[in-house]
Amino acid sequence: MTAPKLPLPGEDLGLFTDLYELTMAQALFRQGMSATATFSLFIRTYPPNRAFFVSAGLEDVLDYLSNLNFSDQAIDYLRALGIFSEDFLQYLRGVRFTGSVRAIPEGRLYFADEPAVEVTAPIIEAQLAETFIINQVNLQSMLATKAARCVWAAQGRGIADFASRRTQGTDAALKMARASYIAGFNSTSNVLAASLYGMPPAGTMAHSFVSAFATELDAFRAYAESFPDRTTLLLDTYDTIAGTRNAVRVAKEMEADGRQLVAVRLDSGDFDELSRQVRRILDDSGLDYVKILASGGLDEYELETLVKAGAPIDLFGVGTKAGVSADAPWSDMAYKLVCFDDRPVMKLSTGKVSLPGAKQVFRTKDAGGMFAKDIIALQDEELPGGLPVLEEVMKGGQRTGPSATLEEVRGRFQEDFATLDERFKALNNPPRYPVSLSGRLKRLTSKVREEVLGVNVSDND
Amino acid sequence: MTAPKLPLPGEDLGLFTDLYELTMAQALFRQGMSATATFSLFIRTYPPNRAFFVSAGLEDVLDYLSNLNFSDQAIDYLRALGIFSEDFLQYLRGVRFTGSVRAIPEGRLYFADEPAVEVTAPIIEAQLAETFIINQVNLQSMLATKAARCVWAAQGRGIADFASRRTQGTDAALKMARASYIAGFNSTSNVLAASLYGMPPAGTMAHSFVSAFATELDAFRAYAESFPDRTTLLLDTYDTIAGTRNAVRVAKEMEADGRQLVAVRLDSGDFDELSRQVRRILDDSGLDYVKILASGGLDEYELETLVKAGAPIDLFGVGTKAGVSADAPWSDMAYKLVCFDDRPVMKLSTGKVSLPGAKQVFRTKDAGGMFAKDIIALQDEELPGGLPVLEEVMKGGQRTGPSATLEEVRGRFQEDFATLDERFKALNNPPRYPVSLSGRLKRLTSKVREEVLGVNVSDND
Repeated sequence: MTAPKLPLPGEDLGLFTDLYELTMAQALFRQGMSATATFSLFIRTYPPNRAFFVSAGLEDVLDYLSNLNFSDQAIDYLRALGIFSEDFLQYLRGVRFTGSVRAIPEGRLYFADEPAVEVTAPIIEAQLAETFIINQVNLQSMLATKAARCVWAAQGRGIADFASRRTQGTDAALKMARASYIAGFNSTSNVLAASLYGMPPAGTMAHSFVSAFATELDAFRAYAESFPDRTTLLLDTYDTIAGTRNAVRVAKEMEADGRQLVAVRLDSGDFDELSRQVRRILDDSGLDYVKILASGGLDEYELETLVKAGAPIDLFGVGTKAGVSADAPWSDMAYKLVCFDDRPVMKLSTGKVSLPGAKQVFRTKDAGGMFAKDIIALQDEELPGGLPVLEEVMKGGQRTGPSATLEEVRGRFQEDFATLDERFKALNNPPRYPVSLSGRLKRLTSKVREEVLGVNVSDND
Repeated sequence: MTAPKLPLPGEDLGLFTDLYELTMAQALFRQGMSATATFSLFIRTYPPNRAFFVSAGLEDVLDYLSNLNFSDQAIDYLRALGIFSEDFLQYLRGVRFTGSVRAIPEGRLYFADEPAVEVTAPIIEAQLAETFIINQVNLQSMLATKAARCVWAAQGRGIADFASRRTQGTDAALKMARASYIAGFNSTSNVLAASLYGMPPAGTMAHSFVSAFATELDAFRAYAESFPDRTTLLLDTYDTIAGTRNAVRVAKEMEADGRQLVAVRLDSGDFDELSRQVRRILDDSGLDYVKILASGGLDEYELETLVKAGAPIDLFGVGTKAGVSADAPWSDMAYKLVCFDDRPVMKLSTGKVSLPGAKQVFRTKDAGGMFAKDIIALQDEELPGGLPVLEEVMKGGQRTGPSATLEEVRGRFQEDFATLDERFKALNNPPRYPVSLSGRLKRLTSKVREEVLGVNVSDND
């Protein structure tokens, strides 16, 4: 049995990068520019209806940096392109990440303009990692944020991640499982994700299972026979109410065997109306312990509507729309050079101005213990009363400590989310959480702006 | 050097599945239900502004099916969950895909309701593959379709895929590179994708490169020195027009060395206005051979606007919005049981009714050789004048022939797209391409509907 073709052959992880990272690297290498650079990863603007972000993806970034390398095959491939010099290729063959990383720990909240990750390393090493770092933190933070909104909308009802079949690829499916668990989902349908991340897997049955039997009742009985202690019956293959009557019949047969049907699942139609009808039929049959799960086309907006309407749904299966963050499928996340060789730098591109210098974010609380305001400052500042949010997680190319467990990360999110005022959690048009710049950062920004304009623009005119 | 942690550990590809595929498999296994099933993969409804889909993802499906297996570790993990029986786990350890696949070849166009892929195999084998098959074909077809719209809007101007940093994960980045190339993009920035798929990689420089130097002019000179034959200069780090003057200066220095600047890149601001100004400055300096590349926030809608306005842009770099199919980030793709043990089956769920039986799609052309209409029929029908679109690509678990090359797939797309009337390519509210059902399929659908309602619904009331 040969191994299947993988989306990311391990030895060539270095090649998961934009070509320009490599061409720039060669130009820097040949200029002898090896001084230390700091790159800052941040989101420029809020996507629609967002007022906070959940940090996620750092674990993969640290794994990537710990293992960054170019295999012989990768070097051979690059050589064959005919655009790289041999001295640079030899350098690249030996390159490893030797720098440091400061970051907002996974599970913590952050806001627009705040650096989620800062990478400080010899410029080529830090530059090469750009593509992978943005790709992973953008995705995972976006999914964790979407999931947090779902959890908020569900108001205590359980949620299972059912997104795997419609996420944008296999990597996104795994990351959705993990990110949504960080934000408070209870389980995932993806077995590989459950095994990789140590999460609870969840699953019911599909319409195909029901269709494969001569009758729906036969299908229900067969499933209950195989899983007497964990059966959830799918009601809508032919007709939800007729399906409920079949489920009641099987639940009664299970009772006769000393078992209990766990739940029934709605997967189409008007969930508010159907859940009330199904609840009534179950209750009238003495099956008040049987839970109702709803799935199909749900994300935070539908969840909020159903919960506010008081639909008697105990559990939600959330799939496609959450798994692709359908109302905000991308964020304007950037990884920008902010310091090179001890010189703070910035770009001035229209609509994309960056802030110079390595930074720290200080979070302050109000008298009630709730988050009051964040201040983005320079890394070496100390702001009394403000809690520094970025932590050093890698130094000299090595992690500074063991990874947090997924449960710890989940705990961090719960802690932070409970400390964020409810108004910022509104699903539609939330107000902006207050974030300001320190006086020193403001002054530095003005100074660097004047300097780069002086050198690069005014002189030309 | 240990290998980096991979998103999809090769040996456990079988675990990339929803838990319910495995629980249903056990229930079927314990019932002794091993008869042949046919599952049909299709898109139920058109996403916004779509009137066609481009087939893509089949290569990965065939790879997956060829290698489907459960490793000892996977079985150990499943055993530890405590919900599977030992006889089923032993069966699963030996399971391989032994069935057949009929599909619309990659690169070909297809339409809503048409089966893109049909899998026929012992029911458990076909069922287990659901999650992966939908995940990959949904993603790749969606990205190829989005890319086709970009190529159409660009009206002959070249397009490079710059999406890797903001696709939803690493798998999506690789698949975007391949899918967009199928639809006519010229190159990708992703080096791993270029190496895996044998595509041309493309790249320029980032703002960080410019910022790392004391002046923009120094940065431009350093890059041109390293890549005298393939330099594209990024103009907007500080000010696009001032950047253009620096680019002109470097282009003249290159001319003195007998070299030519290839292109300049706009990455922010008003592309229509800036491209005209930059073109004028270049032309006035005798640099009419220097091309203008624009990137940043572009997808088919912006491309169409710029092209119709006559903006003098030669090449587009298309990223985030195309790479996540921002205006339609998911499609309603389903994988449904249509036949089991020679019995045609269907589901009747509200809004999600499926059509019974294994199928074929027949495509007809008009007198001018353009696609006129498709007819969805049963697999064993023959419709004179209609070209069958699905081909057998796997039989007895083996591919029926060698994979098409990426260039061949690209050729198929060009052929099909040229044969599709322009009105279906409109970016906004295109009309529906005519697709109908054969008389036999209609009659079978009515018959099966009555049967399943009779057995499962009427009897209950």
